[in-house]
Amino acid sequence: MSLPGQLTPSPRLLLGPGPSDAHPRVLTAMTTPLLGHLDPQFLQIMTETQEMLRQVFRTKNRLTFPVSATGTAGMETCLVNLIEHGDKAVVCTMGYFGNRLVEIAGRAGADVTVMQQTWGQVFDINQIREKLKEVRPKVLAIVHAETSTGAWQPIEQLGKLCHEFGTLLVVDCVTSLGCTQLEVDAWELDAVFSCSQKGLGCPPGLAPVTFSERAIAALKGRKTKVQSWYLDMSLIESYWGGDRAYHHTAPISMVYAIREGLRIVLEEGLEARWDRHLKNHKALKAGLLALGLKYTAAEGHQLPQLNAVRIPDGLDDAAGRKLLLNEFGIEIGGGLGDLKGKAWRIGLMGYNSKPSSVMLVLAALEQVLTKMGAKVEPGAGVAAASKVYVSG
Amino acid sequence: MSLPGQLTPSPRLLLGPGPSDAHPRVLTAMTTPLLGHLDPQFLQIMTETQEMLRQVFRTKNRLTFPVSATGTAGMETCLVNLIEHGDKAVVCTMGYFGNRLVEIAGRAGADVTVMQQTWGQVFDINQIREKLKEVRPKVLAIVHAETSTGAWQPIEQLGKLCHEFGTLLVVDCVTSLGCTQLEVDAWELDAVFSCSQKGLGCPPGLAPVTFSERAIAALKGRKTKVQSWYLDMSLIESYWGGDRAYHHTAPISMVYAIREGLRIVLEEGLEARWDRHLKNHKALKAGLLALGLKYTAAEGHQLPQLNAVRIPDGLDDAAGRKLLLNEFGIEIGGGLGDLKGKAWRIGLMGYNSKPSSVMLVLAALEQVLTKMGAKVEPGAGVAAASKVYVSG
Repeated sequence: MSLPGQLTPSPRLLLGPGPSDAHPRVLTAMTTPLLGHLDPQFLQIMTETQEMLRQVFRTKNRLTFPVSATGTAGMETCLVNLIEHGDKAVVCTMGYFGNRLVEIAGRAGADVTVMQQTWGQVFDINQIREKLKEVRPKVLAIVHAETSTGAWQPIEQLGKLCHEFGTLLVVDCVTSLGCTQLEVDAWELDAVFSCSQKGLGCPPGLAPVTFSERAIAALKGRKTKVQSWYLDMSLIESYWGGDRAYHHTAPISMVYAIREGLRIVLEEGLEARWDRHLKNHKALKAGLLALGLKYTAAEGHQLPQLNAVRIPDGLDDAAGRKLLLNEFGIEIGGGLGDLKGKAWRIGLMGYNSKPSSVMLVLAALEQVLTKMGAKVEPGAGVAAASKVYVSG
Repeated sequence: MSLPGQLTPSPRLLLGPGPSDAHPRVLTAMTTPLLGHLDPQFLQIMTETQEMLRQVFRTKNRLTFPVSATGTAGMETCLVNLIEHGDKAVVCTMGYFGNRLVEIAGRAGADVTVMQQTWGQVFDINQIREKLKEVRPKVLAIVHAETSTGAWQPIEQLGKLCHEFGTLLVVDCVTSLGCTQLEVDAWELDAVFSCSQKGLGCPPGLAPVTFSERAIAALKGRKTKVQSWYLDMSLIESYWGGDRAYHHTAPISMVYAIREGLRIVLEEGLEARWDRHLKNHKALKAGLLALGLKYTAAEGHQLPQLNAVRIPDGLDDAAGRKLLLNEFGIEIGGGLGDLKGKAWRIGLMGYNSKPSSVMLVLAALEQVLTKMGAKVEPGAGVAAASKVYVSG
């Protein structure tokens, strides 16, 4: 067989649900020659990475580090470490990733009670209170930013509520970290996981996690071993924590990447970053509405970083996305699960949340919609977005 | 807190047990801007990567791909997919990584029978035959290249033997793939895992795995779900296989890396690569012996790519390695487990298996040993190695 040639992918603007484009400084950091994973200089890099990660998570949790795998492994890490066979868990699902929580909690041996919410809606804290009263679970798991629907679940009061019932709160922040406000300590979240390829502007490959002292106590109090050796927090803690005991070989280049990504986040400042995401979302939203598109998530609960809109009746999902990709190099996401074929998902995450992304995707969408036969007022999307930028 | 500065690690020559240095072309490939993980161009890259991986594994197995995590996750993948609660497993351990197989098989619910061999020795096939006769296990697991001792386990006949008893053979090839001969199909291996950061000359972060049709049949015949969702081969198969069904977000940059690493391996040719590793090992071995160092692995079973030698009596392990690191920028490995403080492990893996590594580490070792008070004949190591290169 002849070998494939040199890597020459076409340039893309990644405005889907993730990965988002990595910041150019992050890509450059990854060319740094390797250190050994037990080299004193690499241990220092690990310490710096953990300290910055704590700042970005807004936590003092000592057990804070990136798991050496992608975001879903972060989900699995949180669940398998806190759940033993037969433990009760309540899982709130309002979309595709909530369903994944249900599936993984079940495989960890949990006795799972599922709370269902209509896709695009969010949970009311009173519903959750009633269920906690009824079930008294060890763990409640919920998605902060549901990537499949673009819905933004309020969780500010949820930790306090869970702790009234002695329940640990696990939160999926895969799509919120680095994009919208997240306060691990102030909101009393117990086990939180995220990813590297969205709000942090890095390639996929790492899953930042953080465990509260309550979660650590539950971990220490286990009667059985964690079913996964690779994801066992008590073992990984000895590696990322003080002992630096060998557990696995850290993915050196990806750690270089996230260290640079976190530096960029903190240089900008978290509040400024959240504001930026909100501002670009407002402009995009004004434009999308002007193009006649409707959000799948309920008003008031729409994520700035993930804008999911219904595809107009009669238009073909895949054909539209193909035009965007081939003619503009823009990737947006299709629908998942219940929304397959029915929604487009436009991400403005991390490095890609910027006016140039907004204006280009609106101009491109207008052209694509028009080509596909939709009635669109010429220039309406771009004009509406511009107005937001100019007059606020 | 002030932020950490730009990444500026000291240059290193990584001659430990891994990571080994990544090939410069691999680091360059990682700077390629991201594609989306469902982009048609990325799907093509996945196909190319799988096809090259099959060639490097010497297999036609369709279920062949890199797991999105480090080598140990590859180990866990093989075991949790093939083992259900109560299944019998025989694990052969002759070092640290054999012990890890025991631990992970146990967490997967196996009824584990452990075969122990003295560290540095290897198993005789007749011992294994007797145990298979006695236990009739579903799975037998063994390490091909035991990184903790430098011992090279013969496995050529083992697959055939296992299949006489209806047993599946799981092999840890973390330190052999890309360094020494490995014939997945010809040797009838059923589930094999490796890593990216040794013989393939990439950064750590991926775990190539391959499953035979026998292993796939066992997977399809399971009565219970695989305990890990992230590592469930039947789900990952739908992503890396024909359907391209979304499972997790592939670590794009690491896939770019391994694609380039595999291209380099195949450009060189596998036989040429194995010969290169052997030749550089012979030179290093001559030099180490001339310096008075003794291998921990038995004669005739010493790995070319991982040379573990006893530290001379009275010399301090850490002090010696620190001198090598600080004065020469060379990393070698210390001992693990039973050999902690007693052995140095010198890797000549992938890109780093070359005469310049051999000559430099011998010259540096001579100086370090002399500084530490050992009696070493000046120039003896370098001279002995040179002789091998010059006269073969």
